[in-house]
Amino acid sequence: MLVVMQAHAAPDQVRAVCQKIESLGYRAHPMPGAERTAIGITGNKDALEPGTLDEMPGVQEVIQVTKPYKLVSRDIKQENTVIRFPGTDAVIGGPGLAIMAGPCAIESREQAFAVAERVQRAGAQFFRGGAYKPRTSPYSFQGLGEEGLRIMAEVRDRFGMRIVTEAIDNESLELVEEYADVIQIGARNMQNFSLLKRAGRSQRPVLLKRGMSATLEEFLMAAEYVMSEGNYNVILCERGVRTFADHTRNTLDLSIIPAVQRLSHLPILVDPSHGTGKRNKVTPLSRAAVAVGADGLIIEVHHQPDQALSDGVQSLYPEQFDELMAQVRQIAPVVGRTVSPIGIHTPAAAIPALPSGTHPVAPG
Amino acid sequence: MLVVMQAHAAPDQVRAVCQKIESLGYRAHPMPGAERTAIGITGNKDALEPGTLDEMPGVQEVIQVTKPYKLVSRDIKQENTVIRFPGTDAVIGGPGLAIMAGPCAIESREQAFAVAERVQRAGAQFFRGGAYKPRTSPYSFQGLGEEGLRIMAEVRDRFGMRIVTEAIDNESLELVEEYADVIQIGARNMQNFSLLKRAGRSQRPVLLKRGMSATLEEFLMAAEYVMSEGNYNVILCERGVRTFADHTRNTLDLSIIPAVQRLSHLPILVDPSHGTGKRNKVTPLSRAAVAVGADGLIIEVHHQPDQALSDGVQSLYPEQFDELMAQVRQIAPVVGRTVSPIGIHTPAAAIPALPSGTHPVAPG
Amino acid sequence: MLVVMQAHAAPDQVRAVCQKIESLGYRAHPMPGAERTAIGITGNKDALEPGTLDEMPGVQEVIQVTKPYKLVSRDIKQENTVIRFPGTDAVIGGPGLAIMAGPCAIESREQAFAVAERVQRAGAQFFRGGAYKPRTSPYSFQGLGEEGLRIMAEVRDRFGMRIVTEAIDNESLELVEEYADVIQIGARNMQNFSLLKRAGRSQRPVLLKRGMSATLEEFLMAAEYVMSEGNYNVILCERGVRTFADHTRNTLDLSIIPAVQRLSHLPILVDPSHGTGKRNKVTPLSRAAVAVGADGLIIEVHHQPDQALSDGVQSLYPEQFDELMAQVRQIAPVVGRTVSPIGIHTPAAAIPALPSGTHPVAPG
Amino acid sequence: MLVVMQAHAAPDQVRAVCQKIESLGYRAHPMPGAERTAIGITGNKDALEPGTLDEMPGVQEVIQVTKPYKLVSRDIKQENTVIRFPGTDAVIGGPGLAIMAGPCAIESREQAFAVAERVQRAGAQFFRGGAYKPRTSPYSFQGLGEEGLRIMAEVRDRFGMRIVTEAIDNESLELVEEYADVIQIGARNMQNFSLLKRAGRSQRPVLLKRGMSATLEEFLMAAEYVMSEGNYNVILCERGVRTFADHTRNTLDLSIIPAVQRLSHLPILVDPSHGTGKRNKVTPLSRAAVAVGADGLIIEVHHQPDQALSDGVQSLYPEQFDELMAQVRQIAPVVGRTVSPIGIHTPAAAIPALPSGTHPVAPG
Repeated sequence: MLVVMQAHAAPDQVRAVCQKIESLGYRAHPMPGAERTAIGITGNKDALEPGTLDEMPGVQEVIQVTKPYKLVSRDIKQENTVIRFPGTDAVIGGPGLAIMAGPCAIESREQAFAVAERVQRAGAQFFRGGAYKPRTSPYSFQGLGEEGLRIMAEVRDRFGMRIVTEAIDNESLELVEEYADVIQIGARNMQNFSLLKRAGRSQRPVLLKRGMSATLEEFLMAAEYVMSEGNYNVILCERGVRTFADHTRNTLDLSIIPAVQRLSHLPILVDPSHGTGKRNKVTPLSRAAVAVGADGLIIEVHHQPDQALSDGVQSLYPEQFDELMAQVRQIAPVVGRTVSPIGIHTPAAAIPALPSGTHPVAPG
Repeated sequence: MLVVMQAHAAPDQVRAVCQKIESLGYRAHPMPGAERTAIGITGNKDALEPGTLDEMPGVQEVIQVTKPYKLVSRDIKQENTVIRFPGTDAVIGGPGLAIMAGPCAIESREQAFAVAERVQRAGAQFFRGGAYKPRTSPYSFQGLGEEGLRIMAEVRDRFGMRIVTEAIDNESLELVEEYADVIQIGARNMQNFSLLKRAGRSQRPVLLKRGMSATLEEFLMAAEYVMSEGNYNVILCERGVRTFADHTRNTLDLSIIPAVQRLSHLPILVDPSHGTGKRNKVTPLSRAAVAVGADGLIIEVHHQPDQALSDGVQSLYPEQFDELMAQVRQIAPVVGRTVSPIGIHTPAAAIPALPSGTHPVAPG
Repeated sequence: MLVVMQAHAAPDQVRAVCQKIESLGYRAHPMPGAERTAIGITGNKDALEPGTLDEMPGVQEVIQVTKPYKLVSRDIKQENTVIRFPGTDAVIGGPGLAIMAGPCAIESREQAFAVAERVQRAGAQFFRGGAYKPRTSPYSFQGLGEEGLRIMAEVRDRFGMRIVTEAIDNESLELVEEYADVIQIGARNMQNFSLLKRAGRSQRPVLLKRGMSATLEEFLMAAEYVMSEGNYNVILCERGVRTFADHTRNTLDLSIIPAVQRLSHLPILVDPSHGTGKRNKVTPLSRAAVAVGADGLIIEVHHQPDQALSDGVQSLYPEQFDELMAQVRQIAPVVGRTVSPIGIHTPAAAIPALPSGTHPVAPG
Repeated sequence: MLVVMQAHAAPDQVRAVCQKIESLGYRAHPMPGAERTAIGITGNKDALEPGTLDEMPGVQEVIQVTKPYKLVSRDIKQENTVIRFPGTDAVIGGPGLAIMAGPCAIESREQAFAVAERVQRAGAQFFRGGAYKPRTSPYSFQGLGEEGLRIMAEVRDRFGMRIVTEAIDNESLELVEEYADVIQIGARNMQNFSLLKRAGRSQRPVLLKRGMSATLEEFLMAAEYVMSEGNYNVILCERGVRTFADHTRNTLDLSIIPAVQRLSHLPILVDPSHGTGKRNKVTPLSRAAVAVGADGLIIEVHHQPDQALSDGVQSLYPEQFDELMAQVRQIAPVVGRTVSPIGIHTPAAAIPALPSGTHPVAPG
């Protein structure tokens, strides 16, 4: 922490601030400058509440310096976290891109199978689909619930893809972790700390979407919540933020990919479907996401988008997804990445084995 | 809904869109213009998914017209919702301003009583305080939990104020509704639809804070979630939104007060403490909130802000709150409002009676 | 400036950064902490380019501390700047609120006089109106140009109000300073530094509107541009910023009023007409602006808003402006302000005298 | 335009709105729906001011439908605009990517030549550099002015690159068009309509940067200003927008590339240097920009970034630019693009010939 004094601050005021700092058990480092004095503070095991100093006479500003995240940070663990799913070639955070695809919501067994067959063949290792849908309106389709989870489990058995689906509260998380391979926490719940802690006590990896107005620090702190409960297999996901721009539903912030990779060892995916909200923008932004260095993509695909019960406007037709994968395959090598070959049918074990992450970091 | 065709759209394309609309059970109203044709759609009981038409040949844009909210709307109920708390003079939505004040978090019985005594005396009818704190960091103070609720119940018995406190998940909501008079849903949970539905099944009024990047429509739809479960006593609260501006923690959007009042019958308060995040901005913005026409204020006050366990930087000293109330008392009459007189001690019944709202609107 | 080193930064790296700092003529203050070392920098007459240190090995972050503004700051001049217009009671920055009102654009002599007569009678001391209109579309009405300025000069002669009008480039500024009393620089030109410098060489006061996405610091720096050329009579104006919120055209950020007043001696007005873009929000937000402590208001009024050539949707009817003034009159005393009495007709001198500001600060 | 009536609007109110519309010379198309009536308006040669109808009794909302841009639109000209520079292989908007590179500011002949030599060799066809710098602070280096332009002209003669540099007002534009090949209008001047019109009367192509908070429509309307004066050679450039996100200086909005390409025939470049403000993000975002489909890049390169007089923190080292170009070369073919081969030295004519665009669209 750094305290910046006003230009006219009296020596007494500087002294008083230093004494206050020392009285709280920290060390004060006054630095008289040409115009004003700044006072550095060290020894802060816990973050000092800025309120303590902010309003003292002569104080102009208190600047937070220490970052509050620990377990997510490369300071704790330098090498990338890689999440493996035993018995399959599905890997997140390794050299191969993780490709997740499927419908916004599971609507029926027929629909799920029709989409799964197509995305698996195109090279997706993960099948995404919603059983519990957080919808802006209480009158919109809210998902099939457990029935949807059961259908996804069948998709896994049949097509050998790993299952990714969203939990929206502790009750649904209970069921999701029973049926699925990856638990998704949606953007609207990124700071639902109760849900994050519950996910942190699960043994399934957690796919954490960035909140609509989350800063990088808040995003990492949400991951820290999950990790602080012992679950180190967290996958971050950029899905667009809210801005004034109205040509897309959200503004996809691809610059957060290298920013996360600099600070954290966790893998990060991109969701261009929600990130743009428009079908015709999904493929260009998927190319860009791979080019920027993302660890994978999560894409909405529907075999009949114009009859989808939700998000039809942003779902790709299966042929469009084929084309997207063809383009992504060409870009991946430029950034040192590989993409799974076009779908060889590899049925997985019926019961999802737990992932073997690179975890047991012993947090200091 | 309105479909805008491209300038060069062929008559065939217009016809195809009209046929598609009719085939879905709606009525199409083509309107040929000087430059392009627009097609109005009526009869849409349910919102038509725009995805159906968006990508048809010749279509430029699909514009949503119908608003999705019903129960929150003045279309359903024209007169203002007024929430009364039997046995006290605490009212929300009536001519008297509802004043809620108290510490960010309940830290101890001593602290709660010290603050309560001061804010009650200054004219607050409601005591706010957190027992469950949604903190950005898992390592920050998370609240006293049920112990905090018990202290607040004592405050009610002793000082006659109604209690407002936040629930952060279904478990804590269970306890909050047992101890408190008003259940707060925080900004981070504004789209935690599972929690909103649970609050909708409670008999306590719900104070719903605007999410950090919520549009007016999303805000009203969150209230609609609560009401759609049968709880019509919803109080909205503006608490600042996230913008690029960095001179305050959030940007307090006071223009939403008249905007809400135009569309909805629900009362709306302002929280200038979170809305600015800076102690020296709380009083000016409180004056502005009353002047713009808000139904009340919710203010953080602490008897020792520099030792607060959370949000000390934005908590008022009790004397500052006295001053704030003195100023608010002068502005209220200009907008046809009254403020409770300076604290006559009126102890309330030990067990909180249920509020008697103006509800049972029979939604059409 | 403060350099924060990485947690694992080697002593050598810390030393190298310190040497670099010293080699640039500054002083380095290393502060070893529990987790990492921070290095304070003093002696920076000119701002040190952060690029110099940002990418040195072991550096995590470089934090700018020193504020770049000087002349606008209370560090240089503690008492408020008050701008007087000799021969009238029009004052900006004093205890009386400065009220500016008039149409968006001057459309004709008849229109200008019709509006002027009404706003003068209601208590406005300044007549606003555009002769040069910055319109989003090149095909929209662009203003009457010099003819509009001439009409405004007649309004001054006839109604005794001081004239405020926008200059959009160096050419129009030349004319504006000849005819008008206050030169307005619009939001879109807030960082048109060439125009700011030209305005800084004028002898007329400058009304500087905040840019649509300007931070407080950028806003103050724009004023610094004007002042750095010798014109100390700058009036700031908040007029809404761009956010995701769509219930108003812009989001009026009233918290910037106390923020500016804390840092700067310059007066600051509020423009709720552009700040909301909706007629029915202008009066509530005007009340709020006065309550928050603004030094005045600038309001669009038109005698026939539904026939206005621009911005009709946000212009008040004259009766609405009367009502606004009546309400503002009641709020002003709460914040220690007065409002001009209802229009006594005081014709001003035909040729605008130069304002006598409190300037000649001798910038140190 | 579409008028949405309130749910309870009386038939009389609907009738009155229709009559008003017809009285203004437009045609009204009332569409009674299940809940409310909407009224379509056609025949609007000029945009009808929404203010006319917005506040009529029973009106809920007025929705603008017609887009105000004409010349920029694919409705007027379907094929892409391609801008050629006779005597060189520099082309913007064709299959080859346009690569512009150089220092933020021209500091000296030595510096300019040192950078030019490197970027030309790496494959840039355009040399960028500022002679007039719009700096946030009046005390920062403001550029060398005409001396800088002269140095750039020498760079053209020597290295055969086309010159791109910013004009900040009508005076500097006069000089810029004399010396340079492309006139840049910076983000801060995107709505400096006076400057846009002046640029529209120039015979040089104009590189128009997106304003920090410009919507797609405002961006296109700014281009429309230039074109409406007869200059059809406009190049758009995305350079990041202002959001709450603080991990980069601006948020680069790559989704605007396909959005522009859908609506307009104008070429669009990406500036990842300003778009991120951080050297280590420039290369990843450059890859992404090419992958998303941009027509080219504009990149800040400095041979000694840590001694740059401006923007050193975001300037690439020449070796980093080599590496960027190597990566871009691999991605380009995926999106059907080519990149100039590594620098064959092709000195251009001393006097810049005018570009031969694909213009003379005869705007209807």
